Amino acid sequence: MQPVLSISRRIRSTPFTERVTAAGVTAYTVYNHMLLPTIFRSLEEDYHHLKNNVQIWDVSCERQIELQGPDSQNLIQLITPRNLSKMKDDQCYYIPVVDDTGGMLNDPVAIKHSQNKWWISIADSDLIYWIKGIAVAKNMNVTITEPDINPLAVQGPKADELMRRVFGEEVVTLKFFRHKKFLFNGKHHIISRSGYSKQGGYEIYTDGFKNGEAIWDRLFNEGQELDVRAGCPNLIERIEGGLLSYGNDITQKNSPYEAGLGKFCSPGLAIDFIGAQALKKQSLEGPQRQIRALFIEGNSIPNCTKPWKVIHGNIKVGQVTSAAWSPDLSKIVAISMIDRKYWEIGNKLEVICPTGRRPAEITEFPFVK
Amino acid sequence: MQPVLSISRRIRSTPFTERVTAAGVTAYTVYNHMLLPTIFRSLEEDYHHLKNNVQIWDVSCERQIELQGPDSQNLIQLITPRNLSKMKDDQCYYIPVVDDTGGMLNDPVAIKHSQNKWWISIADSDLIYWIKGIAVAKNMNVTITEPDINPLAVQGPKADELMRRVFGEEVVTLKFFRHKKFLFNGKHHIISRSGYSKQGGYEIYTDGFKNGEAIWDRLFNEGQELDVRAGCPNLIERIEGGLLSYGNDITQKNSPYEAGLGKFCSPGLAIDFIGAQALKKQSLEGPQRQIRALFIEGNSIPNCTKPWKVIHGNIKVGQVTSAAWSPDLSKIVAISMIDRKYWEIGNKLEVICPTGRRPAEITEFPFVK
Repeated sequence: MQPVLSISRRIRSTPFTERVTAAGVTAYTVYNHMLLPTIFRSLEEDYHHLKNNVQIWDVSCERQIELQGPDSQNLIQLITPRNLSKMKDDQCYYIPVVDDTGGMLNDPVAIKHSQNKWWISIADSDLIYWIKGIAVAKNMNVTITEPDINPLAVQGPKADELMRRVFGEEVVTLKFFRHKKFLFNGKHHIISRSGYSKQGGYEIYTDGFKNGEAIWDRLFNEGQELDVRAGCPNLIERIEGGLLSYGNDITQKNSPYEAGLGKFCSPGLAIDFIGAQALKKQSLEGPQRQIRALFIEGNSIPNCTKPWKVIHGNIKVGQVTSAAWSPDLSKIVAISMIDRKYWEIGNKLEVICPTGRRPAEITEFPFVK
Repeated sequence: MQPVLSISRRIRSTPFTERVTAAGVTAYTVYNHMLLPTIFRSLEEDYHHLKNNVQIWDVSCERQIELQGPDSQNLIQLITPRNLSKMKDDQCYYIPVVDDTGGMLNDPVAIKHSQNKWWISIADSDLIYWIKGIAVAKNMNVTITEPDINPLAVQGPKADELMRRVFGEEVVTLKFFRHKKFLFNGKHHIISRSGYSKQGGYEIYTDGFKNGEAIWDRLFNEGQELDVRAGCPNLIERIEGGLLSYGNDITQKNSPYEAGLGKFCSPGLAIDFIGAQALKKQSLEGPQRQIRALFIEGNSIPNCTKPWKVIHGNIKVGQVTSAAWSPDLSKIVAISMIDRKYWEIGNKLEVICPTGRRPAEITEFPFVK
């Protein structure tokens, strides 16, 4: 009944697509013009497995934008309100990227190799167009490419054990959001302690399309007794953990302050970036609405395919953009954007979803029982 | 067996999604972060119907980028090698958009409203990021937005008759790639004679999400005896007609000359655009490879999900990026990119597709028996 996804060259396959297919992927989304699995067995079965074991995720769709050359550092600082001046060469920073009005264009992770070489690991938008447009117009001395890097995430409580078996003891000494090169089959691949779950884990920046399957296979061979499985970012788990999704929970119409990312913005400092003026105003006045965790009453909920109104009485006070039934919390968990006057924790509101009106209550991330 | 598409807010629904669902869509792709139907009954049944009747297509994913303000004309000329200086206010131009290296970023249709107001009806990439990046960096006096416009295409040999019934006699006087405003339910909507098929037809630039369903419903009511159906760009028909697909047949790695769009490039003239130097070189030397129509032997062919090698003996001489069995031509038709030395019409080559090696022959667009 549910429409299938037509795959063409434009919806890019990854080095792991054949393995993912063999592992029984049942649903996909498209992310950065690329296949991203969303479900293998079922949303709930995948969820329990992720929280108890270890999964290998094909997140090749986290495309890298590589900046290389003398103006790299200037360019990356120009596109983000986050102060990058003290960043070390082995650090990863979550950086909001904004336009001249302060609207978010992407929420990537910046991976610093050196002052003159950066990767930007992007969420779902063609951020390379923005960065190249600026660099070309300003005639900056920087080369901007999308290298042949295809990230593979290893996520879940048994991720340390699996990574140790494949990459040796040193890999588990990596600190959160730090990266380092590791050798595999004679080739270096960057590995970071990071990933789009709250279960802990790693991302392997597989270098070279042709090297992907060997890494995948080794992880599965070494992980057999750990019940390693193919997985993917899980809707329930990411909502529970308060992990935002660009395009779902935040869009170009939202500022970083609205997204709750004010702590990553330094519009008052001496750094020069596009949108500084717009953000400075908002940093002083505060945003008019902000991301909030929301419990919704009920024991099942349809898929949120477009924003659901959040109301107080008959006034629209916000919207829900992601929602799912949480088996572990026995509640419906949701991510919403709520107007200032109504955003306090504990506030009782209502959500209008396709099955009707439901009572809801503002809470905090991460969701707890 | 084939994975379904997970729909979320990030994969945007359109004003017509409920109607498309009711009409029995069976496959989708994602295009500009939006749902684009690809199959209703079957690829072949949809194909025959399109070539004999009239279809209504939800092509809301052809997003519009609106440029408004005194620098609009300068900005749009800056992003394309096509000379726009003689364009009339009611014209639509197919324009390659290239970066500083001459690589294609998109192949949109520019819709001129006036010197100070343009729409750019885009193919699948976030072209607004490129345009905004340039405008912001150059501090140009132009407002760049994505207005709430959702195109609906009316395609097929009976399109004239259906459009006449709904919009009156004047609409059928529209010339190819010309546009005009038409009134519907008290609101003006731009209509052009255009569309992504070779069957003739129109595109209605439905103004306002909430006005979409009324237009859809009227088209279906008036078209009952014409056997109007919900349809979509059809893979077989578009290959037969030689309609290229950005992301499939051409990418950022290709120049307009490689795409066979040299006639739309004026790198020798006085117009100033990004990439002029790179294209000038190629206009003198000619491209090293170019889009070609290709017949492939056989009577069925798998879906082309990644480029297939085209070989001559054991030498790789090109690639196939789109292919389908054509019921009307009783042949397999394909779009390929072939190296200069091998691109002549009539040349015999071979294609390595997932089911093996197949003889192939270069021919011309549009495909004929």
